[in-house]
Amino acid sequence: MPKQKSSLPKSRLPKSKKPAKTVASAPRERSAARAGADPKAACRVALIGFGTVGRAVTRILCETVLAENGNGSLRLTHICNRNVERKKQAWVSQIRVPSDVIWTDDFHVVLDSDVDIVIELIGGLSPAGEIVRGALEAGKSVITANKQLIARHGPELLQLASANGVRLEFGASVAGGVPVLPALRTGLCGDRLHGIAGILNGTCNYILSRIESARIPFSEALEEAQARGFAEADASEDLDGGDARAKLAILALAGLQCHVAPESIRARSIRTVEAVDFDYASELGCTIRQISRADLKQDTLFAEVGPSLVPVSSPFGRVQSNQNLVLTSGKYGGDMAFLGAGAGGDPTAVAVISDLMLVAQSLAGGNGRKGGAEVVTAALLSPETSCDFETPWYLRFLVRDRPGIVARLAQILSAHQLNIDAVLQNPGFDKASLPFVITLEPCRDSQLQPALQEMAALDFTIRPCLWLPILR
Amino acid sequence: MPKQKSSLPKSRLPKSKKPAKTVASAPRERSAARAGADPKAACRVALIGFGTVGRAVTRILCETVLAENGNGSLRLTHICNRNVERKKQAWVSQIRVPSDVIWTDDFHVVLDSDVDIVIELIGGLSPAGEIVRGALEAGKSVITANKQLIARHGPELLQLASANGVRLEFGASVAGGVPVLPALRTGLCGDRLHGIAGILNGTCNYILSRIESARIPFSEALEEAQARGFAEADASEDLDGGDARAKLAILALAGLQCHVAPESIRARSIRTVEAVDFDYASELGCTIRQISRADLKQDTLFAEVGPSLVPVSSPFGRVQSNQNLVLTSGKYGGDMAFLGAGAGGDPTAVAVISDLMLVAQSLAGGNGRKGGAEVVTAALLSPETSCDFETPWYLRFLVRDRPGIVARLAQILSAHQLNIDAVLQNPGFDKASLPFVITLEPCRDSQLQPALQEMAALDFTIRPCLWLPILR
Repeated sequence: MPKQKSSLPKSRLPKSKKPAKTVASAPRERSAARAGADPKAACRVALIGFGTVGRAVTRILCETVLAENGNGSLRLTHICNRNVERKKQAWVSQIRVPSDVIWTDDFHVVLDSDVDIVIELIGGLSPAGEIVRGALEAGKSVITANKQLIARHGPELLQLASANGVRLEFGASVAGGVPVLPALRTGLCGDRLHGIAGILNGTCNYILSRIESARIPFSEALEEAQARGFAEADASEDLDGGDARAKLAILALAGLQCHVAPESIRARSIRTVEAVDFDYASELGCTIRQISRADLKQDTLFAEVGPSLVPVSSPFGRVQSNQNLVLTSGKYGGDMAFLGAGAGGDPTAVAVISDLMLVAQSLAGGNGRKGGAEVVTAALLSPETSCDFETPWYLRFLVRDRPGIVARLAQILSAHQLNIDAVLQNPGFDKASLPFVITLEPCRDSQLQPALQEMAALDFTIRPCLWLPILR
Repeated sequence: MPKQKSSLPKSRLPKSKKPAKTVASAPRERSAARAGADPKAACRVALIGFGTVGRAVTRILCETVLAENGNGSLRLTHICNRNVERKKQAWVSQIRVPSDVIWTDDFHVVLDSDVDIVIELIGGLSPAGEIVRGALEAGKSVITANKQLIARHGPELLQLASANGVRLEFGASVAGGVPVLPALRTGLCGDRLHGIAGILNGTCNYILSRIESARIPFSEALEEAQARGFAEADASEDLDGGDARAKLAILALAGLQCHVAPESIRARSIRTVEAVDFDYASELGCTIRQISRADLKQDTLFAEVGPSLVPVSSPFGRVQSNQNLVLTSGKYGGDMAFLGAGAGGDPTAVAVISDLMLVAQSLAGGNGRKGGAEVVTAALLSPETSCDFETPWYLRFLVRDRPGIVARLAQILSAHQLNIDAVLQNPGFDKASLPFVITLEPCRDSQLQPALQEMAALDFTIRPCLWLPILR
């Protein structure tokens, strides 16, 4: 959607529809007055962004809530997307949209209207940020699936919602249909969580699973994922961890009450994982998954995203291609696991509609001022972020073979006080490009890094070694 | 707690404490007035029932919310338990209870006071039912972990809460610390669930796991569970499925919007499962677990509780002794799994405190009338209940061996149109008491029962065969 001018292009509005009103001032009073005047009035909902998730939200709403309640408690009033007039006919032939919905490609029409709830599903930081801010400031509650926006500006937007007496919900922004965010903010809010770990990116999980099952090179698995629609043409956000760390930042916000910038979370790419790593991992009883993890210890948030060895028999090792898994650890409630479909239009739409039902219900209860979202009311921490986890490590070297290589590496590791656990070398490789593995006993990331630098400079190494944490 | 007279035994109140007031009339007005007058006033909380969970709730509250907020937003005002004066000193030496808490053994003191929220943790139907009803009628919100009360009277009590403009929350009544009920009522409320299945009883799971791992007789596993505190002296409620079916009824209420009496759900006991069944199950790639399941199909709720064969490698097969697992199936969101600690004081207390935080927050938001709980607002179904699932079956016979037994059984099964899948007979058993297994291809429960009756009457059978569904 292109940036829009702030003047209202009325010519685009269908003529028979109610014109939008300008209600920028005094949103709180308006909201309260509206709720107080007639709590039974239908809650007016606008949808901005009519892609896969937006269309699924509309279809499911039409099949369930709108069909069951008529237009009693909820009304879909606007659908906003660029080029809406050109695409509308194709959409309407697929989805039975209520005939009185206003179709527009100008989000200002929505912001200036009297809708109660705006569902933002266009993604990205702009213009989604302007839309969400504008809606909150106009006294409208907002539901979004926008992980980048919430990861970066969540605390500020939650404050804005609270200040305007409306709600901001983002249950669909992490793990699609897995209700982990609602669970964190309701059933687990009485605990004090100290750890969250998850498989949060379906693209990485698909690619790693394919390398594992077919023992194909990374590049081939990526091409296959792109051909099958599991990876975008530019999949960097997924492969290099940008997507997962935004989700991890949101989980840390909702579950650990930590405000952490996604950029401060280290992300390692999965591009350097090859088929041979699954052979060696298998000898260690493990497989390889992209794991996102965050542990809060005193004033430090240990957090990172990247490929990691996990036991084949562990919950992480058993996650299927399109599933997401989130594990939480609490001081009082212990460990919890949430597993389900991580992406896809329908599961994500369920999360959006669930948020919508709750917000609509709180408005229908005559509760214009809902006190904002739960995470704001708990004091937010702004901890130091560190990736200095202590774990055992998997180091996979690629070398031009010659005598004395292991001895030289062992010497360097020893000089850095790092203890070797095992050396694994499978037969049958070309000596000119020999992959072999050294595993280390638990040590800190910060202890390992200087040794990695020193080893990368050795003349027999073809490329810097692949280093992966081994999670137990 | 014994039934109490309704007169207020003031002599039991510590003298320096504020005496309880009688506010039985006009609860709604009072509630609204209170919320309207000073939304910032601390929310007053009373706890009735000071057993394992009650003490855990108090300890965790004192360590977290009360310590962090001082007495700002939440105040623990009453602790009610029988013989409270005699036990108080022992408790206070373990838990730092705020000094201004009123200790009482008369729940009327609580009901007649100005507390906003009553936490009911005494369990059972009476006097818990009177307490919950009395509190709701007096305009107090109620949080309970009472599965029997909610399973039997949930819909009626939710209506009562709604009519009085207060909330009734019961997140701790199923699966202890696993936030499945909050997830059903928030993150999954936008889906249309049609199936729920779970391992909901830790005692059964412990006993079956012990028979599996040690191949000991059922009676020995039960004694061991009792000695280690995992089973009560009279464990009938657990073993025979009464506990699990109450939980299943609550899951059906919250997740499937079905009002079903727990008694209408068939419960099979685990008492007839023996070590030899794990041998035969293992040959089928399975183990045995107590499974509770409910499937909504049109106007019928298929539901039952009982020991079932599940694949060793399935989520059910991997559940550890004290864990609970709940799987949900939704029309739009697909399958979801929730795993965690199913019982224990601390995990259950987390669920109670989570409910408390949400209710306290809605009261603090100036929202005296919260619209009741979510499940009431959706139309409740009252479906027919049936246990007529279609599955493959495991039939384990115990016979006095002689020629022609399998032929005779096969003849009966064939006459009932039941197809044999496999006959399993391990060597080494006494011929006078020979256990062997016939598995059947999928058929309905109602097709199987007449054949079971006919076979039970045969003179070579020592006892009626054990019949278990095989879940895939």
